[in-house]
Amino acid sequence: MVFPPRVSVVEVGPRDGLQNEPARIATADKIAYVNALSRGGAPVIEVTAFVSPKWIPQLADADDVYRGITRREGTRYTALVPNLAGLSRAETAGATEVAIFASASETFSRRNINQSIEESLETYRGVCARARENGMRVRAYLSTAFGCPFEGDVPAARVATIADALIAMGAFEVAVSDTIGSAHPGQVPRIIEAVGAHVPVNRIALHFHDTRGTALANVLAALDLGVTTFDASAGGLGGCPYAPGAAGNLATEDLIYMLDGLGVETGITLEAVVEASRFMESRVGHALPSRYLQAVG
Amino acid sequence: MVFPPRVSVVEVGPRDGLQNEPARIATADKIAYVNALSRGGAPVIEVTAFVSPKWIPQLADADDVYRGITRREGTRYTALVPNLAGLSRAETAGATEVAIFASASETFSRRNINQSIEESLETYRGVCARARENGMRVRAYLSTAFGCPFEGDVPAARVATIADALIAMGAFEVAVSDTIGSAHPGQVPRIIEAVGAHVPVNRIALHFHDTRGTALANVLAALDLGVTTFDASAGGLGGCPYAPGAAGNLATEDLIYMLDGLGVETGITLEAVVEASRFMESRVGHALPSRYLQAVG
Repeated sequence: MVFPPRVSVVEVGPRDGLQNEPARIATADKIAYVNALSRGGAPVIEVTAFVSPKWIPQLADADDVYRGITRREGTRYTALVPNLAGLSRAETAGATEVAIFASASETFSRRNINQSIEESLETYRGVCARARENGMRVRAYLSTAFGCPFEGDVPAARVATIADALIAMGAFEVAVSDTIGSAHPGQVPRIIEAVGAHVPVNRIALHFHDTRGTALANVLAALDLGVTTFDASAGGLGGCPYAPGAAGNLATEDLIYMLDGLGVETGITLEAVVEASRFMESRVGHALPSRYLQAVG
Repeated sequence: MVFPPRVSVVEVGPRDGLQNEPARIATADKIAYVNALSRGGAPVIEVTAFVSPKWIPQLADADDVYRGITRREGTRYTALVPNLAGLSRAETAGATEVAIFASASETFSRRNINQSIEESLETYRGVCARARENGMRVRAYLSTAFGCPFEGDVPAARVATIADALIAMGAFEVAVSDTIGSAHPGQVPRIIEAVGAHVPVNRIALHFHDTRGTALANVLAALDLGVTTFDASAGGLGGCPYAPGAAGNLATEDLIYMLDGLGVETGITLEAVVEASRFMESRVGHALPSRYLQAVG
């Protein structure tokens, strides 16, 4: 196996991690959390989502959070936007980079964002066009790429087609996402190969959930295939809200521990991530699922 | 990456998993647990340890457990023995295979079994010699091979030397063990290479703990190096006794889920392991740390 000298970790704790937490987190605490992650050296932080508070009540303070953070040189601060209204809010808040969220499963798309895949792509084409006019970068998520909670298997060819469409409309990167946490290292090469036939590997990111414990093994398999961008959430914040302690997002600590061991540079200090996680753990009011975090007690 | 068609999973839940559990488990429940794992197709089960009840009170009923299990054709039933007295008990109970437990760290050896490494090897030479006379097979653990809680790093050359000594005295296999759960996939090739210079790879087993979430990634790295025997504990039983929910042994479910995904045969039925874990979970009185087990809720 061969490993790259450097990997880019996209910290999604403040958005993907927090969005389903039942306890309402104070705006100042969210800002402190992002700032702690910045100090830890995160190269990219997804700060919040500019969506309707009806959809994600936890992130209703997106504007205040985004404006309130202290920007560190060397860190990019992105935010999820579902449409042109969200893009406007992001722009007003000072964002220069946003993320859009498409699905590879028709059923999941309809249930999650109430649009067909094609309707959502049409929305995102508009977002990408205006973002480009405004000099903003757009990152694209592609959810349910490794399986759908409603449809089960999702054909790799469909994943590849939609990834291609997202890059074609102007996204600089597509985060191929294991929404239900069922991906395993046998599946990773099949998906990377299919997507890689349309999208250069340096524009493919992977977003794994550790639901079945396979996330780090998936990263290892993907590193061997040349992928160098991975999403992670400090503490593994973003576990299943109705199963406390169950794993959701791959924990940043677990990822950094492995990458440090492999000699792969990330620019992120493990201890600083632990500190940020400890802080947020005290605010959400339950243990976070990161194995590393639990091990260092 | 290349994967073998078949892997042998050594089920250590009934011994390594149970030994530190504070709740006293009834003998009949231990027997039911082993029988459930047998029905699930485990090729090898470490049933108990024939040690002094002073050392491991939980396993004081070793003789009754070993005699009480229903032996399934196709499953080997082994048991830990610390010395000749343990070997005699194992033999009387009807065991045809036992396991010994050496350490790669001098401090760990003294604190864990109150013998220097060399003293312990001398003890085990006697065990191996008598086991051979009696037609019994001996498996050897080599603990702290990836790091010691007292000494920190353990030189790979020392790990290799002791592994070599264990095979030379007659052990058929050495289970190179990550006692503190700090192993990462960067370390795995270094240890395998060092041990592999003395011991054929088909006589190397790996025993990982998932303390920092790296166990499956370690297995993946080791599969790529030709290792085909891995220890695991149903449900991840054997987590740290003073940190409920924290991970200890690699969970059999998590391992089988990944191997099933890779198309690697084990002969083990995932659902049957889940059933055995659910049963023991109800007896130990706390959630078991297996990610897969938690995911299937």
